[in-house]
Amino acid sequence: MKAEIIAVGTEILLGQIVNSNASFLARQFADLGIDSLNQQVVGDNPQRLAAAIQLAASRADLVVLIGGLGPTADDISKQVLAKHLGVDLANDEPARVKLAAYAKQQQKQMTPNNWVQAQLPAGAQPLMNRVGLAVGAVAKTATHQYVLLPGPPKEFQPMVLEQLVPYLAAEIGDAPILESEVLRFFGIGESALVTALQDLIERQTNPTLATYIKDWEVTLRITAKAADHAAAQNLIAATEAAIQARVGEYFYGYGDDNSLAQEVVKALKATQTTLTAAESLTAGAFQSALGAVAGVSEWFKGGFVTYSNQTKADFLGLDKRQIDADGAVSAATAKAMAVGAQQKTHAKIAVSFTGVAGPGPSEGQAAGTVWIGLVQASQAPTATLLHLPGSRQDVRGRAVKAGLFAVLKALQNK
Amino acid sequence: MKAEIIAVGTEILLGQIVNSNASFLARQFADLGIDSLNQQVVGDNPQRLAAAIQLAASRADLVVLIGGLGPTADDISKQVLAKHLGVDLANDEPARVKLAAYAKQQQKQMTPNNWVQAQLPAGAQPLMNRVGLAVGAVAKTATHQYVLLPGPPKEFQPMVLEQLVPYLAAEIGDAPILESEVLRFFGIGESALVTALQDLIERQTNPTLATYIKDWEVTLRITAKAADHAAAQNLIAATEAAIQARVGEYFYGYGDDNSLAQEVVKALKATQTTLTAAESLTAGAFQSALGAVAGVSEWFKGGFVTYSNQTKADFLGLDKRQIDADGAVSAATAKAMAVGAQQKTHAKIAVSFTGVAGPGPSEGQAAGTVWIGLVQASQAPTATLLHLPGSRQDVRGRAVKAGLFAVLKALQNK
Repeated sequence: MKAEIIAVGTEILLGQIVNSNASFLARQFADLGIDSLNQQVVGDNPQRLAAAIQLAASRADLVVLIGGLGPTADDISKQVLAKHLGVDLANDEPARVKLAAYAKQQQKQMTPNNWVQAQLPAGAQPLMNRVGLAVGAVAKTATHQYVLLPGPPKEFQPMVLEQLVPYLAAEIGDAPILESEVLRFFGIGESALVTALQDLIERQTNPTLATYIKDWEVTLRITAKAADHAAAQNLIAATEAAIQARVGEYFYGYGDDNSLAQEVVKALKATQTTLTAAESLTAGAFQSALGAVAGVSEWFKGGFVTYSNQTKADFLGLDKRQIDADGAVSAATAKAMAVGAQQKTHAKIAVSFTGVAGPGPSEGQAAGTVWIGLVQASQAPTATLLHLPGSRQDVRGRAVKAGLFAVLKALQNK
Repeated sequence: MKAEIIAVGTEILLGQIVNSNASFLARQFADLGIDSLNQQVVGDNPQRLAAAIQLAASRADLVVLIGGLGPTADDISKQVLAKHLGVDLANDEPARVKLAAYAKQQQKQMTPNNWVQAQLPAGAQPLMNRVGLAVGAVAKTATHQYVLLPGPPKEFQPMVLEQLVPYLAAEIGDAPILESEVLRFFGIGESALVTALQDLIERQTNPTLATYIKDWEVTLRITAKAADHAAAQNLIAATEAAIQARVGEYFYGYGDDNSLAQEVVKALKATQTTLTAAESLTAGAFQSALGAVAGVSEWFKGGFVTYSNQTKADFLGLDKRQIDADGAVSAATAKAMAVGAQQKTHAKIAVSFTGVAGPGPSEGQAAGTVWIGLVQASQAPTATLLHLPGSRQDVRGRAVKAGLFAVLKALQNK
């Protein structure tokens, strides 16, 4: 199967939005083993869109239109595709009912254009829109499959993952089931991970392996094709075991919609542990990352931002002369901060951050020099030294992740 | 002038990278008044790239190839373009000298492919690569202009902004100078801003106006074409004055590389003001935003994350029974938190955040209900109620920005 993606929208041609939908869909096609040799972007113009469909159909058998399904006069994708197919538009009854309910709830007068959102080219199979109102579609001819997808990523992505990918996997035939698992790693770079898994990656056919790097983490997607769910899971499990044996120490969790902070909050809950923090260079970023997770407030009651030696002393009950003597960026100060924060809050675990965010050195220490302090219950505090590369934002971001990872490992070793 | 962008690279077709270069360049074209009716993406394949150039040349007179200028066998853009033009590749002497110096410094054995990075189609004008080694080019024929640009954004963006845009502005002819100014706004939505400036936006020809929305802020770019710098600045100034008269209350600063936090730190410095914060729902995100700005530590010594009523009482010296009586999310508690933080740190200005981040209500108040407290020197504290829309992340992000904006306005009114 050869696919061609056509993104429809003048706002892409004007550079007002980035064509991230095409990238998202292309990755799914790659995982499915569907070739993709060309992509197009075209504005909201019927003649040019018709020409784009014609061109795509001349060199691909799976033609996907993204965008142009909405209720405005600019939204022309399904009309132009219907004309290309030589069919009329027909109502999709579930979509029409949903639209009518929406109109009633919003007490909104619907224009004729609004109702087009519930229509699709006659004979096409609907792709239900779980998030929005515009129905998607797959239209199959003797030679081609044409797909209509909505432009807003919040509608587009679930429709692709939940409906289009399973449909295409079934169409491809020899692999009616396509399942994937995402492993998340911290503390190892993408190239180091790829090197560690070199032979697995080189001989990959099924499952396939794909690494991505984002926000100082690496994720690895294992995708298996199999006859059924159990067989796919077996393939994934065997590959995961081989991976975990090599780089398991950097693994922290599963899934696309996951994060170190979410795993930490899960672990706090599982171990009934309260946490606090005292942050210097990260200035609240660690605590804010925890705050992003709903429900954290049961395990995290509060903490401190202590930029200066004076606030380290005042807020955490430390001896300022001792901090001055040890240096703000030192193992001793990192430990004292963690212990002080723990004592002030009676949290079971406390973590501290002190270091040089940069740009440039501070107190004779290079940018990227970071101490992370940790104390658990009545154990002796520890301090870990990191030398983090990159900009001020990189150093702070990596330090936060390193702190979350350290807390997670400490909780898991309980 | 009609432009067509061809992004070259199999990694885009596989969804491994997002085609953000096309978006960046398209925005420049829009600012220059250059039409853009189609875009293409094609892999690293000579036949398909040749066909893509042919197609683009049939419907545009400015054809831009992005990517494929590097030293590997996959990099074929200049070779295929040279063939399309019927010319050979020729050395660009400055690029060759730079490459030779690099090879010497790195003690690297250069393959023949490496040297191609210093070549361009014979007769083309070089676009110097300030960041990398691969030279760009503009090749002009009787009917068309063809442009070669490198793929890595760090090389691509400066080449576009510093060389291609001025070149094209001069080619367009009647406007040898093209200058722009970015105005940044907070507290007004994009559609409200567009409505307020409707007539200005509709009658825009020179300067042009373009709005963008990101991270709960709106930016407005004013772009003027003129004979010289002074004339361009006059055009921009007149337009800006008209805009400021209407929406100036939401304006906070200039420039692409700016932020509310940077403006706050500038204002703290200008007024020699120290600041602290006590954060509940934002959990350190406000302080972390300040921490992102180098040099902030002189004006921000530390602050508090107080999620629970107990930590609000313990850290800030408040009366817990009073908080329980007033409610955590109340004007009284917001004021008391700000005053408490100020007293504990002796900072001149203190800001506090308490509210419901969501999802779902808390203590009978809807998600998005946020109080921001503020106290300056010995003035009476104030508290402002916000009802913020969106997800937990939206509510927290908007609250942080609202706090920064409130501090900025307070400092500017000093």
